[in-house]
Amino acid sequence: MKALIVAAHPDANSLTAALKDLAVRTLEAGGHEVVVSDLYAMKWQSAADFTDFDGITGTDFMHASGTAYETGRLAPEIRAEQQKLLDADLVVLLFPLWWFTVPAILKGWIDRVFTYNFAYGAAIPRYGDGPLAGKRAMLATLTGGRAGHYTPRGVNGPIEDLLFPLNHGLLHFTGFDVLPPFVAHSAVHLAPEAYADIAAQFRQRLTTAFTTDPLPYRSESGGDYTALTQPGGSELAPGLETPGTSGFGLHLAG
Amino acid sequence: MKALIVAAHPDANSLTAALKDLAVRTLEAGGHEVVVSDLYAMKWQSAADFTDFDGITGTDFMHASGTAYETGRLAPEIRAEQQKLLDADLVVLLFPLWWFTVPAILKGWIDRVFTYNFAYGAAIPRYGDGPLAGKRAMLATLTGGRAGHYTPRGVNGPIEDLLFPLNHGLLHFTGFDVLPPFVAHSAVHLAPEAYADIAAQFRQRLTTAFTTDPLPYRSESGGDYTALTQPGGSELAPGLETPGTSGFGLHLAG
Repeated sequence: MKALIVAAHPDANSLTAALKDLAVRTLEAGGHEVVVSDLYAMKWQSAADFTDFDGITGTDFMHASGTAYETGRLAPEIRAEQQKLLDADLVVLLFPLWWFTVPAILKGWIDRVFTYNFAYGAAIPRYGDGPLAGKRAMLATLTGGRAGHYTPRGVNGPIEDLLFPLNHGLLHFTGFDVLPPFVAHSAVHLAPEAYADIAAQFRQRLTTAFTTDPLPYRSESGGDYTALTQPGGSELAPGLETPGTSGFGLHLAG
Repeated sequence: MKALIVAAHPDANSLTAALKDLAVRTLEAGGHEVVVSDLYAMKWQSAADFTDFDGITGTDFMHASGTAYETGRLAPEIRAEQQKLLDADLVVLLFPLWWFTVPAILKGWIDRVFTYNFAYGAAIPRYGDGPLAGKRAMLATLTGGRAGHYTPRGVNGPIEDLLFPLNHGLLHFTGFDVLPPFVAHSAVHLAPEAYADIAAQFRQRLTTAFTTDPLPYRSESGGDYTALTQPGGSELAPGLETPGTSGFGLHLAG
């Protein structure tokens, strides 16, 4: 199978960088082909702007990006990343958790690569049957805080909920089967044995990445939501919720 | 009073840009002093890296940023933004919602400006009594989706929860009193009367920004959470939750 690892850390000696190398070795040892987008090493441009569209302006930024995609006029580095996504069977986004989400450079990869008409659009199904359906994706993130700060009652909020905009709003939205995230807490100034623990856990997640059950997110195209075009449409259909759930948890079946 | 507006849209003719100008006019008409950080116009660098630290490397990126802050060696454009924050009584972050959070350029403003030792640190209280306490902040965001997609049962998740990492994890974390967000949905190709509606609502929120009740987030330094240093510390103290709440909702009192 083919794997794409997208990594984002400014320090080539960071834990993120070490886990990136570990991921390459582990997946290659499993017989997979691995491509890496190391965003800092690539000096990836973060800010999405009209210079990506080869002179296309149009009426608004979103539709200009879609026109540029449709006509092959997107910046070459964006087309290259889109092709990597299309080629991949597994995508791993590997990053330190900065202010409870991805670093800007990785947000810029998302903003610029997941364009209108490629990743979403008026005629493109979302949440369960999107353009990247059939592929798997996994977030792998490192936090500086203690695990207890990210529990259901933790002061930062539950890590599953903090990652929902990425897991559900980006990956599930565009069709991926989304694996449970790999999360390592207290990932600052690690003692060797703590690193060995994290490395072993990450290796285990990578070797099972093609067999692990994905998160049971619901399907918009499959009828779990009221019709998009109704007033108040695209809401979870009555009675589907697991009793006792609310908020983001509603969107997990079973 | 003094207001800082941080705006992030690549199109100078966008709704975001129009609302930025409206905010300046409205706040100035109210007798306030207004400073604008228009990130695209400033060509703000998004990716946080070691070039911000005047040669300081240190053992890890976070602590290097803290050392650069303490010794006055942060990049001048970062120090300028930190000073704008210190000078402001009200901060408005104005942006289109891209993949359910801020555009990369605004994430880059957050990543680079909210450095260790300035915005957070081992000796700095968080969640209720931080370095920016006494100031107010408000998110103002525009979405392309329908309002129904962002309701408690909406397929995207509730907008309040999607904005929690910013409202609670950034603004409340660093001490701001966080106002309810201003959110305009279906903000694409607006008819004139729809624009007039949004403008009127935004104007009303700006004219009441110094009197509106902030969100009742709980206080870590005030004892709402178990002690940070306990195993499993920094969790909501037993019995404090509003009955029936869970997830991010636990962190709102009353």
